[in-house]
Amino acid sequence: MILEKAELYIKSGESELFEKTFRKAKKIIASMKGFVKLDLLSCTEENSKYLLLVTWETIEDHEIGFRQSIEYQEWKELLHHFYEPFPVVEHYTSII
Amino acid sequence: MILEKAELYIKSGESELFEKTFRKAKKIIASMKGFVKLDLLSCTEENSKYLLLVTWETIEDHEIGFRQSIEYQEWKELLHHFYEPFPVVEHYTSII
Repeated sequence: MILEKAELYIKSGESELFEKTFRKAKKIIASMKGFVKLDLLSCTEENSKYLLLVTWETIEDHEIGFRQSIEYQEWKELLHHFYEPFPVVEHYTSII
Repeated sequence: MILEKAELYIKSGESELFEKTFRKAKKIIASMKGFVKLDLLSCTEENSKYLLLVTWETIEDHEIGFRQSIEYQEWKELLHHFYEPFPVVEHYTSII
């Protein structure tokens, strides 16, 4: 199991629409092979900042299965225009 | 429920000792009022980088109950010398 992590900075004034759109986009990612679960969280200290945590069975399920899919094009179209700057995505494995 | 998040950069060559020490330190934080769960994860893309995720019942359980406790002094002594730079801690609430 692998955790995909991204900090999302949403363009000013677009948070409400982003959250609404994300609910729709979640169905896309949740239908992919290897998807385990997803959490979208909002930052207490910084307005318009979110934390996206997605658990995948393997890193390939995210990087190949999802990112090279037709579904990813739809995900991208729905969400990527909200981000400024474009997020850095990292992967983590559980230690403790 | 609130998620405490910190990215931890461990001094070069000290990762193994950090992980060992963290297992000991976990008992301290896990005994605190309002502690729900903890995950320590290691980064796939960047050596010596970790993600600490702690779920608390309330932000006060972390910021007051834990940080102003005697137990926090012990936690600090065990762990803070491993970090470089000192981590930025943020709090997040679940949206989706």
